[in-house]
Amino acid sequence: MTFPVVGMIGGGQLARMAHQAAIPLGVRFRLLADTPQDSAALVVSDVVLGDYRDLDTLRRFAAGCDVVTFDHEHVPTEHLRALQAEGVAVRPGPDALVFAQDKGLMRARLDELGVPCPRHRLVTDPADVTAFAGEGAGYPVVLKTTRGGYDGKGVWVVADEAEAAEPFRAGVAVLAEEKVDFVRELAADVVRSPHGQAVAYPVVESWQKDGICHEVTAPAPDLPHDLAAEAQALALRIAGELDITGHLAVELFQTRDGRILVNELAMRPHNSGHWSIDGAVTSQFENHLRAVLDLPLGDPRPRARWTVMVNVLGGDYPDMYHAYLHCMARDPGLRIHMYGKDVKPGRKVGHVTVFGDDLDDVRERARHAAAYLRGDITE
Amino acid sequence: MTFPVVGMIGGGQLARMAHQAAIPLGVRFRLLADTPQDSAALVVSDVVLGDYRDLDTLRRFAAGCDVVTFDHEHVPTEHLRALQAEGVAVRPGPDALVFAQDKGLMRARLDELGVPCPRHRLVTDPADVTAFAGEGAGYPVVLKTTRGGYDGKGVWVVADEAEAAEPFRAGVAVLAEEKVDFVRELAADVVRSPHGQAVAYPVVESWQKDGICHEVTAPAPDLPHDLAAEAQALALRIAGELDITGHLAVELFQTRDGRILVNELAMRPHNSGHWSIDGAVTSQFENHLRAVLDLPLGDPRPRARWTVMVNVLGGDYPDMYHAYLHCMARDPGLRIHMYGKDVKPGRKVGHVTVFGDDLDDVRERARHAAAYLRGDITE
Repeated sequence: MTFPVVGMIGGGQLARMAHQAAIPLGVRFRLLADTPQDSAALVVSDVVLGDYRDLDTLRRFAAGCDVVTFDHEHVPTEHLRALQAEGVAVRPGPDALVFAQDKGLMRARLDELGVPCPRHRLVTDPADVTAFAGEGAGYPVVLKTTRGGYDGKGVWVVADEAEAAEPFRAGVAVLAEEKVDFVRELAADVVRSPHGQAVAYPVVESWQKDGICHEVTAPAPDLPHDLAAEAQALALRIAGELDITGHLAVELFQTRDGRILVNELAMRPHNSGHWSIDGAVTSQFENHLRAVLDLPLGDPRPRARWTVMVNVLGGDYPDMYHAYLHCMARDPGLRIHMYGKDVKPGRKVGHVTVFGDDLDDVRERARHAAAYLRGDITE
Repeated sequence: MTFPVVGMIGGGQLARMAHQAAIPLGVRFRLLADTPQDSAALVVSDVVLGDYRDLDTLRRFAAGCDVVTFDHEHVPTEHLRALQAEGVAVRPGPDALVFAQDKGLMRARLDELGVPCPRHRLVTDPADVTAFAGEGAGYPVVLKTTRGGYDGKGVWVVADEAEAAEPFRAGVAVLAEEKVDFVRELAADVVRSPHGQAVAYPVVESWQKDGICHEVTAPAPDLPHDLAAEAQALALRIAGELDITGHLAVELFQTRDGRILVNELAMRPHNSGHWSIDGAVTSQFENHLRAVLDLPLGDPRPRARWTVMVNVLGGDYPDMYHAYLHCMARDPGLRIHMYGKDVKPGRKVGHVTVFGDDLDDVRERARHAAAYLRGDITE
């Protein structure tokens, strides 16, 4: 057997779903997790427990792997450079991943490439934010820590200079961005392998609330064909220029005047691609694994006219089992994905997916199930 | 968290694929395997190693489970009765499972129910086989050990009394059956839960060679609607009358004169249902788990007009990795399922699935990939 071992750093739901995809591929899946209760650690056979911020732990983990990839972007760039220098196949590599780790570097690199982004600038203090606002965008301004943010953490929308003080308190670099007048958010997800093969998923509509993805519709309804093609081409170009291997999610704003602007990059399986487990010929998780292993990529095409994925967030009720049972009974076509996580208010604990020909029907069913699981509705 | 623990006895590929289905369901999956190298033990987090023929091992395993189910039919019936008497939820229960364990009991029970079967009789020695042949069916006669056979093992087609000696050498009870003049084999797969809900998958065509399933087409091409409905109704009736919980595969002969006869019963996920992983809204593995957990069942409907599954058998080459890579490159729509097993000639080491609108295309692609992986073709 020469089937390889893929190691994933991080024990969240992305690693859990990646293991699920690794099983039919027949590749070995090794996990570096924080605790045995991590979402992925609950289901993976080969788990190393340890701290991803510790280089020796990373070395010990990587020794058993043919390639190392990620469930999150938080592994220190210098550790990844060290591993790579020691001969470990790190995918995406640190030279690419740094652009998903550091929003300041990402904006600078996308500027070089001429990729359309919101107006932005690194800022040093609240007065500098006001200066940035005065350069054209005005208040409110979006402030982001350049490193460490996710799911709305590390992002502030500030109305004036007084509110702009908060982000600077942590002492990390802060990026100011114009608050874009967008009609909706989109995501262009692509997968690229080391030998340069790439596939593009249909562009999806992503509905965010408080910085957290709530709902994804594939493909994005009423998106003009040329704008969809432009978004896919842009994502493929970014993947190529940055030499990204694996899954790349390009989060986009669709502006009121019909342009697309890049919001964020994620170089790993991403919430915008969860619909693909049930909705595409090859899921983002399988294609991510195929890419980092330099295997030929699978068909990214959708299997249904419409697929809607809604995240299940924790509500006030810690036990979802009876709601889960109810949702299965109500809708035999519902695809439920639970992450094995304890329910905490606002925490992503699962997602549901529905596919079909009628968008209204598909969306209503997915939303109903997610709301019922959360406990927002009881009928 | 009140999400239950389902325990599966047996570490083969059926348990491996059941674990894959358990991950999104969010239920805990516990495995009783013979060795850490078992197909399922390679991927499951919670593995107990032990002998399924040992009652104390079974007790120890069951103590951590809310329900116990099976990857194979070989657990001694008396042990299952003991577990059940001690309060363990065993699904399917021993009173049902015994009809999948013992072909003599199965035939007697189906006779009582008036279910159409091949002409059959328990036989005691070669002369008795000749007497059975003389009662109408003639030679060749099919002889089966009543217990312990699978994948062609424990089955003989004998041309005369001299050849009929072999099956009696093991000293186990032998069942004689007429060699049915069938045009093809079909399978009617259904799933039934303890509270009596049941779903029926489309009737499939199953192509066997040397007693091993090679290829399954869903739905069975050119099957008259009334015959398909009859087969589904028959399988649902058997599931109900025998009080089966979980997946039931009813293997059928379609005779030259347009009847269906029951060949075998399997009360677990079954090779005839592997197509459903990629081809149905809810796979047989997920529905089996939902059934034994008494959860509402999922939609069994096919997602494509045609789905063809071809088993990957071991050939002369122990390393399939390069062939696997080639198959992925040739056909991005190919769904590959590898079981993590060492390659041995004739051993089931994986399966491939293709779906689409054009049966000839779908079948050619699936057959090509399986033949290439086996090493029968090199282009």
